[in-house]
Amino acid sequence: MGSQEDSSLQSIRYHRGSLHLLDQRKLPLDTIYLEIRDAVEGWEAIREMVVRGAPAIAIAAALSLAVEVSKLEGFSGTPKDAASFLEKKLEYLVSSRPTAVNLSDAATKLTEIVTNHAATATDANQVFQAYIDAAEIMLKDDVADNKAIGSYGSSVIQTQKKDCKKISVLTHCNTGRLVISGYGTALGVIRALHADGVLERAYCTETRPFNQGSRLTAYELVHEKIPATLIADSAAAALMKTGRVHAVIVGADRVAANGDTANKIGTYSLALSAKHHGVLFYVAAPLTSVDLSLSSGDEIVIEERSAKELLNTRGGLGEQIAASGISVWNPAFDVTPANLISGIITEKGVITKTGNEEFDIKGFVHKTMSNN
Amino acid sequence: MGSQEDSSLQSIRYHRGSLHLLDQRKLPLDTIYLEIRDAVEGWEAIREMVVRGAPAIAIAAALSLAVEVSKLEGFSGTPKDAASFLEKKLEYLVSSRPTAVNLSDAATKLTEIVTNHAATATDANQVFQAYIDAAEIMLKDDVADNKAIGSYGSSVIQTQKKDCKKISVLTHCNTGRLVISGYGTALGVIRALHADGVLERAYCTETRPFNQGSRLTAYELVHEKIPATLIADSAAAALMKTGRVHAVIVGADRVAANGDTANKIGTYSLALSAKHHGVLFYVAAPLTSVDLSLSSGDEIVIEERSAKELLNTRGGLGEQIAASGISVWNPAFDVTPANLISGIITEKGVITKTGNEEFDIKGFVHKTMSNN
Repeated sequence: MGSQEDSSLQSIRYHRGSLHLLDQRKLPLDTIYLEIRDAVEGWEAIREMVVRGAPAIAIAAALSLAVEVSKLEGFSGTPKDAASFLEKKLEYLVSSRPTAVNLSDAATKLTEIVTNHAATATDANQVFQAYIDAAEIMLKDDVADNKAIGSYGSSVIQTQKKDCKKISVLTHCNTGRLVISGYGTALGVIRALHADGVLERAYCTETRPFNQGSRLTAYELVHEKIPATLIADSAAAALMKTGRVHAVIVGADRVAANGDTANKIGTYSLALSAKHHGVLFYVAAPLTSVDLSLSSGDEIVIEERSAKELLNTRGGLGEQIAASGISVWNPAFDVTPANLISGIITEKGVITKTGNEEFDIKGFVHKTMSNN
Repeated sequence: MGSQEDSSLQSIRYHRGSLHLLDQRKLPLDTIYLEIRDAVEGWEAIREMVVRGAPAIAIAAALSLAVEVSKLEGFSGTPKDAASFLEKKLEYLVSSRPTAVNLSDAATKLTEIVTNHAATATDANQVFQAYIDAAEIMLKDDVADNKAIGSYGSSVIQTQKKDCKKISVLTHCNTGRLVISGYGTALGVIRALHADGVLERAYCTETRPFNQGSRLTAYELVHEKIPATLIADSAAAALMKTGRVHAVIVGADRVAANGDTANKIGTYSLALSAKHHGVLFYVAAPLTSVDLSLSSGDEIVIEERSAKELLNTRGGLGEQIAASGISVWNPAFDVTPANLISGIITEKGVITKTGNEEFDIKGFVHKTMSNN
């Protein structure tokens, strides 16, 4: 193991001793990979936004240290010294993006693993080896989880649309290989439909104001030669009216216990249009996005982002486009109520509604955990 | 007469012998008026997009010739020569934008007027005077029609929302002073609500892909100190969910006999959201936008615009923002079905639904014409 099997677009290219990250700052105009040789270069790549998206950041950080460790020569300390060395490096990597929960969770988990190994190891190299294995397993698991989401998603949509020869889907924002290390969530479902030979066309929205759709999703779809069309966010309802879309698939920032889902601004509007036109509406997200402590979407606090994203191009860094002096309301997310959602596609299967038209997410999670 | 009474933002500044056009190519960053001294300068201003919007173009063309004629010295021909001179100039002006129906309609009407006058006039100056009067009346009528729309619209919304102390409205695209010579249609209603002291806040969408909302509507609202907030198109549903919007008011490109309305892409999506949230949804448009020959919106052909508008900034002229090679679907308009529309605000009153939940537009138009 130690390398991804798929040679197509990846934000993270890794095999043992070698890590390259796709420089997302250059997208969609240039496709450039940067070599990362150690934790310092990993830290800088995360800090400078070479790599984006919570899961990808955590894995890039872990692998940057794995590369450093695989080339380490002449380490003369004890197994405990090795564990302590790794712990300090992980702490340092977390400081590259202190608010990224996935990153600090990953560091905690990896520290635990090396500490446990240090207790029984006979030399430092065994601890380093355990670290490398654990970091590689994180990558492998992430890819496997994504592929499972893709596979479950493709199946459920094909079952729901078994009368259609070909299926067209609409997606929003970017949920592909660029934010996830492996295969993507909502975009992973689209990849799976395409691999299954049933995808007619993927439609992606621009996703204002930061254009993740036109910059990143469009880039991924073109790169993988998936038949794809870009639309303005506001054209989605008109597109659905034409009957050309069979399902909408979006990712999730957070899913509450009742299924209410926070996702990129504009998702709620797409869900309303889908409901009106009888179009399926699926959320695709790993179970880590489910927060059972939130009873409903009302408890999700919506971050408001800088007015500059609407006033200037390039997310606020480019030229002025809007009138000077105008106030702006720029919520990062909106909440789509569970009653507009057909199902929630996870790496453990699709959560569908029970008899009373409600999701039993708690039941699904508990059943999944007891099976592990 | 011969000058507009209102000194605030105008795309056309006119008094007899003097015409200045707001250079819309420079908006929203600069507010620059260009002096237009004759038909040649009028032709160039229209051709070079200094002035935009069908009604504004027709009036700017007519007034450019009025200014030329008002300064004409030593014309030695007969009344018929004067009519022929004007007719040729009008034909020339129409060639600045041959597809603009309002412009050729206005030229036809003005030619008729001068030809009629030439039949009875005793000298050429009488014909020129008749032309100047007719061009000025076009401007005056346009302003009056717009003000009537604003006034009827403000009344109907205040009546519908009589339990609200203050009213907030959402609008889409630009329907203000920049496309209409006078006061605006949907934006005219917002101006009237503000003048009546009942407007809490106007929300305007960006209006992708050409950003008429963030560039032009936002500019007008800031310029007139109307409390206003810009949102991404895709944030409208989330905004309505907060309860902060009482009515949506949009313009119309074309209204069919049953009330189905073609307007800027994104209007349909706003109408669906408004319906879902119980928000009023009004169309504001002069009766010239009603086309009784179209029985429903199904007969309205939707123009598709250049992919460049989504691929690059500034309507396709600026820097590349989207991924190379992506296909684009870029419809200019969508059709909002009559069942989502609360009422159609015209210069002759508000068309509301009859007992059977349908608009009787034909009846309204005929009644209006028989009253004239």
